[in-house]
Amino acid sequence: MATAPSVSYSMTVRLEVPASGTAVSQLTTAVESSGGSVTGLDVTASGHEKLRIDVTIAATSTGHAEQIVEQLRGIEGVTLGKVSDRTFLMHLGGKIEMQSKHPIRNRDDLSMIYTPGVARVCMAIARNPEDARRLTIKRNSVAVVTDGSAVLGLGNIGPMAALPVMEGKAALFKRFAGIDAWPICLDTQDTDAIVEIVKAIAPGFAGINLEDISAPRCFEIEARLREALDIPVFHDDQHGTAIVVQAALTNALRVVGKGIGDVRVVMSGAGAAGTAILKLLIAAGVKHAVVADIHGVVHAGREDLVEADAESPLRWIADNTNPEGVTGTLKEAVVGADVFIGVSAPNVLDGDDVKAMADKAIVFALANPDPEVDPAIARESAAVVATGRSDFPNQINNVLVFPGVFRGLLDAQSRTVNTDMMLAAATALADVVTEDELNPNYIVPSVFNDKVASSVAGAVRDAAKAAGVTVSPSASATSV
Amino acid sequence: MATAPSVSYSMTVRLEVPASGTAVSQLTTAVESSGGSVTGLDVTASGHEKLRIDVTIAATSTGHAEQIVEQLRGIEGVTLGKVSDRTFLMHLGGKIEMQSKHPIRNRDDLSMIYTPGVARVCMAIARNPEDARRLTIKRNSVAVVTDGSAVLGLGNIGPMAALPVMEGKAALFKRFAGIDAWPICLDTQDTDAIVEIVKAIAPGFAGINLEDISAPRCFEIEARLREALDIPVFHDDQHGTAIVVQAALTNALRVVGKGIGDVRVVMSGAGAAGTAILKLLIAAGVKHAVVADIHGVVHAGREDLVEADAESPLRWIADNTNPEGVTGTLKEAVVGADVFIGVSAPNVLDGDDVKAMADKAIVFALANPDPEVDPAIARESAAVVATGRSDFPNQINNVLVFPGVFRGLLDAQSRTVNTDMMLAAATALADVVTEDELNPNYIVPSVFNDKVASSVAGAVRDAAKAAGVTVSPSASATSV
Repeated sequence: MATAPSVSYSMTVRLEVPASGTAVSQLTTAVESSGGSVTGLDVTASGHEKLRIDVTIAATSTGHAEQIVEQLRGIEGVTLGKVSDRTFLMHLGGKIEMQSKHPIRNRDDLSMIYTPGVARVCMAIARNPEDARRLTIKRNSVAVVTDGSAVLGLGNIGPMAALPVMEGKAALFKRFAGIDAWPICLDTQDTDAIVEIVKAIAPGFAGINLEDISAPRCFEIEARLREALDIPVFHDDQHGTAIVVQAALTNALRVVGKGIGDVRVVMSGAGAAGTAILKLLIAAGVKHAVVADIHGVVHAGREDLVEADAESPLRWIADNTNPEGVTGTLKEAVVGADVFIGVSAPNVLDGDDVKAMADKAIVFALANPDPEVDPAIARESAAVVATGRSDFPNQINNVLVFPGVFRGLLDAQSRTVNTDMMLAAATALADVVTEDELNPNYIVPSVFNDKVASSVAGAVRDAAKAAGVTVSPSASATSV
Repeated sequence: MATAPSVSYSMTVRLEVPASGTAVSQLTTAVESSGGSVTGLDVTASGHEKLRIDVTIAATSTGHAEQIVEQLRGIEGVTLGKVSDRTFLMHLGGKIEMQSKHPIRNRDDLSMIYTPGVARVCMAIARNPEDARRLTIKRNSVAVVTDGSAVLGLGNIGPMAALPVMEGKAALFKRFAGIDAWPICLDTQDTDAIVEIVKAIAPGFAGINLEDISAPRCFEIEARLREALDIPVFHDDQHGTAIVVQAALTNALRVVGKGIGDVRVVMSGAGAAGTAILKLLIAAGVKHAVVADIHGVVHAGREDLVEADAESPLRWIADNTNPEGVTGTLKEAVVGADVFIGVSAPNVLDGDDVKAMADKAIVFALANPDPEVDPAIARESAAVVATGRSDFPNQINNVLVFPGVFRGLLDAQSRTVNTDMMLAAATALADVVTEDELNPNYIVPSVFNDKVASSVAGAVRDAAKAAGVTVSPSASATSV
């Protein structure tokens, strides 16, 4: 899989070059012949003999960036200065901050925002706790909670190393849905402890977004928190992914003209995302699903399942999929399948496997950064191909979902989140793509399409109200 | 104690009055004759027959505000519209928000702030955890943690009702010290649970500000967290108050020309604030201190102390104060005392008690909202009087201290906070008042004096570096 230079591997290199001669053109040539891409070039100082030039370069990887720098160093007459990594520069000091909504200019401001005025607001909430949603940040606040056990595809890197992801998530919550989120990175990976901690911090938030917590602990943590709390708890790695996949599948099936109850779906991966996708697809009407994990197709008679705990996620899969009792390998299972959904590992399928699928096949190869099958090769025979990558069409990206889902939950003041709300979110997301726009390379809208979050939010809000799980209108005694 | 109308009891009343006649002057007369104060008057709509007027009025209490509204209702020809409480209006939707530091305009921004670019930043921190202070919000973030057990003077009103105070505190952290603080309101009052929770959430913060946690649990919680964590833990109700008191005492002693080692100090109150003040005063050089609580003067032979746990705060007081073995009541103890410091209850002393103190007496009556002795009466015989109130001179206000203390701790990347740092903060705060400015009615600077936070921060930073408890310069392998 050839990769294009990406701004996420982008650096600014400061160079001094002779004022005369061909040094500048040699620079750009060197970058391009090394496979990099010049995205900016500023002459920041100029003299009779020397020019100082800042060149911004996109590369394909950290190693590639280093190679390019070495190429530049080799050009005669060029002196290499500071090399700045643009991604690291954006992270310096963190990406989010806290802001006061009101200026504090004088004693009068202080006496209303803080003591003594604040005491009356506190007492109003003590008398009527529902007023917290009116008179505090609770209404619009979400905790982004992680234990750092399964961060992106990086594994168990711990809570501190997970913080840049959580900050990014908080920034996206604000950008796409106006939500105030704050990262809570937990220095424990004990299930009981995490449940107790999140229960304890809940009063200040209207929703909990669990993030990058490894399976199977994430299932139990989420289930116990949903049971215990009166605010919605949403594990984005599970349900955010499931909602985007369901939306994308809805539109992919429109493209190929097949019905959701008719298609044979084969999934690779039975982790957090895989299980959540499967459950949502079944709720949406999928009748023929087969799941494979690292040991092959999951079926009730498989050795590791015969004695599995009745509560185990794999047991649930065995009981709720594969009615025909298919056995064997993933590669065997995909033969004749209409839909492949991978949330597992790179390169578990090849072009021949995709060719062996049914006519007008749909392939969602979502492993990151390297998909289950090269999407360029899959597209040779499949009708619709989607990945998790931003450099191919049809990116399955949770950013399409979590801001709008939480916006809807918060607007409805919902006490929980359920499957109906998730299906409503998926339908709303799918419907953002109009009939005119829909085609094999456009089954999901851009994350920068400003209809996305508002459509998803509206659908979730209505579904929450219909479910009767929202906070009743405040019976506040305090007029404002 | 007569109270002046305060903006913290302030409302805007919408009225319709006849366009002709004396209705408008009758309005202001009615407000003023009821003891209120008109702070604004806007004609928001005008017609031939009617004017619509928004009158903003300061009152002395909620009941007083209601009386004024009734007075206005009684004026002939006046129709009363909406009454808005300005303090509640400022709290609608909460007082703080989260903001992204960078715009997210397109895929390039997204790929650096979030995936895939963020992964490289995560891995840099995984390899070198100290990099979290460089590449995340950790460096400048403080958790404002409460369990709602002792909120202002309101008592145990719980975590949700405490949230407006914590938001206010966060707003003040930003306003006075540029710190990003976020409220964490805990739905538990169990000491062990609070310790475990705060330990667990610590990775995302560079400091913990404990707030409004009741004694004696606050002592144990703070001590255990200081032991366990590598970031400073500061219970503002204890140490913030202690530092301001020590600063104010320093300047009050300058005013009266007495030495800290010579004065007899009598304290009323042995709770969280009282104990912390006492300890800091002793560290600063006070040699003759006597503490009284609700049972009278604390001495080693007192019935409830003979069998007290050796670790109990009261036992510590008995062992470290009152070398002369004074017994009896607070009123007996203050006879001849140079300094009275009250952090207890309203009106435990009267004018005669203050008269019975030594010449050039210093009285800090800090109970809120009603001091231990009426400050106007105390001033008749005492040389220097301070209270916690904003409507008397010499307000002992924690806002003078906590922003600068944390700014200094964060700038030094301190792993802890100790008594030397607190004494340095007190000295720096006292020194903000110049020789020329110092007088009996000006022993502490205004909270809006912009030298306050920077002076305190500088002193704390230097003390932390001198103590050798700061994070060593990052040995990062990642150049930026």
